Amino acid sequence: MKQVRRVLILGEGFSHDRHSGKTMRGIIRYGPDSVVAILDSARAGEAHDGIPIVGHVEDALRFEPTVAVVGVATQGGRFPQAWRELLKRCVKSGLDVESGLHEFISEDPELVLLAEKHGVELRDLRKPPQGLTVPTGANLEVDAKIVLTVGSDCAIGKKTVVVELDLEARRRGLESVFVPTGQTGIAIAGWGIAVDAVVSDFLAGAAEQLVVEGARRGGRLLLVEGQGSLVHPMYSGVTLGLIHGSVPHALVLCHRAGSTEIEGCPGHPIPPLTELVELHERIALPRRRAKVACIALNTADFERDVDARAEIDGVAAETGLPTDDPVRFGAGYLLDAVLARL
Amino acid sequence: MKQVRRVLILGEGFSHDRHSGKTMRGIIRYGPDSVVAILDSARAGEAHDGIPIVGHVEDALRFEPTVAVVGVATQGGRFPQAWRELLKRCVKSGLDVESGLHEFISEDPELVLLAEKHGVELRDLRKPPQGLTVPTGANLEVDAKIVLTVGSDCAIGKKTVVVELDLEARRRGLESVFVPTGQTGIAIAGWGIAVDAVVSDFLAGAAEQLVVEGARRGGRLLLVEGQGSLVHPMYSGVTLGLIHGSVPHALVLCHRAGSTEIEGCPGHPIPPLTELVELHERIALPRRRAKVACIALNTADFERDVDARAEIDGVAAETGLPTDDPVRFGAGYLLDAVLARL
Repeated sequence: MKQVRRVLILGEGFSHDRHSGKTMRGIIRYGPDSVVAILDSARAGEAHDGIPIVGHVEDALRFEPTVAVVGVATQGGRFPQAWRELLKRCVKSGLDVESGLHEFISEDPELVLLAEKHGVELRDLRKPPQGLTVPTGANLEVDAKIVLTVGSDCAIGKKTVVVELDLEARRRGLESVFVPTGQTGIAIAGWGIAVDAVVSDFLAGAAEQLVVEGARRGGRLLLVEGQGSLVHPMYSGVTLGLIHGSVPHALVLCHRAGSTEIEGCPGHPIPPLTELVELHERIALPRRRAKVACIALNTADFERDVDARAEIDGVAAETGLPTDDPVRFGAGYLLDAVLARL
Repeated sequence: MKQVRRVLILGEGFSHDRHSGKTMRGIIRYGPDSVVAILDSARAGEAHDGIPIVGHVEDALRFEPTVAVVGVATQGGRFPQAWRELLKRCVKSGLDVESGLHEFISEDPELVLLAEKHGVELRDLRKPPQGLTVPTGANLEVDAKIVLTVGSDCAIGKKTVVVELDLEARRRGLESVFVPTGQTGIAIAGWGIAVDAVVSDFLAGAAEQLVVEGARRGGRLLLVEGQGSLVHPMYSGVTLGLIHGSVPHALVLCHRAGSTEIEGCPGHPIPPLTELVELHERIALPRRRAKVACIALNTADFERDVDARAEIDGVAAETGLPTDDPVRFGAGYLLDAVLARL
């Protein structure tokens, strides 16, 4: 996965949706590959970040893609029915197909036969490696400082924040490694384990493997992609397994400015940030008590910088913690705050 | 699985071990089947609870078993190498085989072929059902009171406590249902999902399905088997997913009297019980804030009742909560405490 590929992103019906389209945007913004086209029939003829949007696989072929990447992350990770036809058309057009959903394309008999016939590869980014097990304690012996993002909800930028912190750390010459724990992170970095797809008993074990591997890759500062939220009624188990298995020295708490309820879960409030900070510090195991080093505030809903800055100042005052939006204003201030806690 | 079967329990190398042998003891104590023999070559000729222990599958045949049940729960859920030969011998002797490990016997090509040849069945109690997904919110609409056991460690009696509470509740004429969430519970009740074996993203969804199913089976009081511990470095993710997905109205906190460290995890202390109570109450989602109703204290390490009673009194004084050992002294007192909180 190291050489530059020419990617067609399959965003059918989702390229406009913040939550489901986050895989697409992550790959475009941080991936090593050249994204040559996006498929979304409802937006055919438009462009996204300068990338042409097409309505059919056939229309994409003039941009000479080599691989089609499923650019959506559906709740529950299943393929919408209409997608089957789409994937088959990609295969028939000679494209490799890469997916990060829970439903594995490489285990679909019809697609597998078709892929063999057309000489293309089907890859599942979320497929766990063989031989996972429970943690061995090797996580606590990793010779690196470990930083994990946590958050008040899903899809608010936990991956983006660690990627930005990692880029900034490497700019400063630090031996930093981004540790991917989900399908988009894996698509960006070319390695990793989607911890939400492993057997529950092996969640912490998978997280342990990831920090061990991050150190093996030369990281003295490991920036681990967080998942879900401790207060999310669907995904909190993944969040806690990742917290306990990756044994962070410091946490970065991510929050979308102005959010007061878990997205898609009416009646499930987000607690005040001060409570969230305390909850995360309480849930750490005694062997390594991670503190929240700073708050990464996603201010994308605020158009003007001055309003974004006011939100940031408000959260800083409320929590007493260094706060910034690393995507909007750069990751330097938050990296300083993280390094000060290690 | 409803008719009474004649069970040979495979306990090779483990029948003496408290942790790994808990499946065996659960089946013997609470299962609907007749256990006719236990296989453990190191203890051949002895007896366990009046059940003969044999050294070879062939020696067990005179007790006319119909099914061999893997009676161990290994860490990581893999089969010790020597077991392969043992399982093959069971199949060749015409026994169905039932297993609760993560390594599925029904997916082992060699065993499957052999089972077909000998006309026997291979069943995996821990194999998740098809079509699991994230919670839908149906858990919060279940028309029943939900009680979940939580604990300071694994293998301290979380399943036993709910089974005892369920037996006592039904004795009193309450419409109570035991909701199994692990392999031994499933072997006892004949239904359930081993939540530690599902894909992590679907943990809470599986727990939701279980409470919905418990109510469908007529339960107005659902006694849900807890898993792991919030303070266990290996299994905490499973614990939290189960807490948030089963949406309990009340919790029963289980603890092994005198334990101060997570078993098998040196350097991982068990926090004081008052802290554990507070942590469990803090981690509940705002939509349903479960309180700890009482403490179930496992006093198996204390030989004399008077010493057990002193331990119980000590914990009651320390926590201010009703405390008892329901296995030793009956489940009536704790059931009263639970019902008073619903």
